[in-house]
Amino acid sequence: MHRYDPALGHGLRHDPFNAIVGPRPIGWISSLDADGVRNLAPYSFFNAFNYTPPILGFASVGYKDSARNVASTGTFVWNLATRPLARAMNASSAGVAPEVDEFALAGLTAAPSRKIDAPRVAESPVAFECVVTQQVRLQTKGATPTSSWMTFGEVVFVHIARSLIVDGRYDLAGSRTILRAGRGGDYIEVRPEAFFEMPRPA
Amino acid sequence: MHRYDPALGHGLRHDPFNAIVGPRPIGWISSLDADGVRNLAPYSFFNAFNYTPPILGFASVGYKDSARNVASTGTFVWNLATRPLARAMNASSAGVAPEVDEFALAGLTAAPSRKIDAPRVAESPVAFECVVTQQVRLQTKGATPTSSWMTFGEVVFVHIARSLIVDGRYDLAGSRTILRAGRGGDYIEVRPEAFFEMPRPA
Repeated sequence: MHRYDPALGHGLRHDPFNAIVGPRPIGWISSLDADGVRNLAPYSFFNAFNYTPPILGFASVGYKDSARNVASTGTFVWNLATRPLARAMNASSAGVAPEVDEFALAGLTAAPSRKIDAPRVAESPVAFECVVTQQVRLQTKGATPTSSWMTFGEVVFVHIARSLIVDGRYDLAGSRTILRAGRGGDYIEVRPEAFFEMPRPA
Repeated sequence: MHRYDPALGHGLRHDPFNAIVGPRPIGWISSLDADGVRNLAPYSFFNAFNYTPPILGFASVGYKDSARNVASTGTFVWNLATRPLARAMNASSAGVAPEVDEFALAGLTAAPSRKIDAPRVAESPVAFECVVTQQVRLQTKGATPTSSWMTFGEVVFVHIARSLIVDGRYDLAGSRTILRAGRGGDYIEVRPEAFFEMPRPA
């Protein structure tokens, strides 16, 4: 075993933390700022956290545009990132000024949402319209808080492309969903042959 | 597009929420209760949330054994779930009484941790020893809170099998990591051929 205390250094060429906890679903978040400027950015520290009601959340390392926007407007959209949208998703991760519209930057279309003001990515096959429920600053074991914030939102409206519904079920295996792997530019595409099944224990 | 308000029903054979946000890394969490009884359970609402210091978190839908244990002892271990450990991981998800040791139930060995009391899964190639930093009850957009709790922990010690370190880097592609897909018994195994790379934008 290679063993280390992360406070003292990992002793490897690259910090393995983000590769170990992965691959991770991508939180591709669209929002509006207080002046109505569109924002779109991918977050890899993201997941679902509750079934009923459906709640998801993402961590912003630093209080970035998305975190600030959703605090001021109270809403955001989660958009599904797929292999055909990978380049656009990647383009939307550029570190640009708050007044830059990442929809335009990435060549994407902003479609109106049904229940909230924040726009969704028209090209994405799934979008969840969300209302912010909590923002939580992450703490450390020491006295110093981090500069990272978790934003949680409840899903209030769902859009799913009919092509991804097969026999009344969502077709994850056929969705070409992409996941973030590691810290740099590594991703995986979900492929049907990677699936296996296990009966749940009683 | 198939469109719905989740508060009014999804109109499909199965709620697609968990399949859409996925596949998800597995939070395979070991802990001790106040009496020293070992607990081990997989959580699929789990992820990393901060790099420095490394922080991860998992949601317990209901205040389950793991959430209660880590609140009373202040520590837990995250263990990597891989294809060779899939059956044991699945066995550890059985709904059993708090006094049942899921290590024994799943045929796994509890190895001592270096910095904390909670044991790790000896058979797992990666373990993160964690100190609890926060527990947060998830709220809804309405006045009613959920019965779900997020537990966050800071990683204070890391164990990585040397076989997973190649040229000084963690070998995610070779790790046989498994991810949870959907709500039922569906999983995927991370395979080398699923990877692709994109340069990060400036």
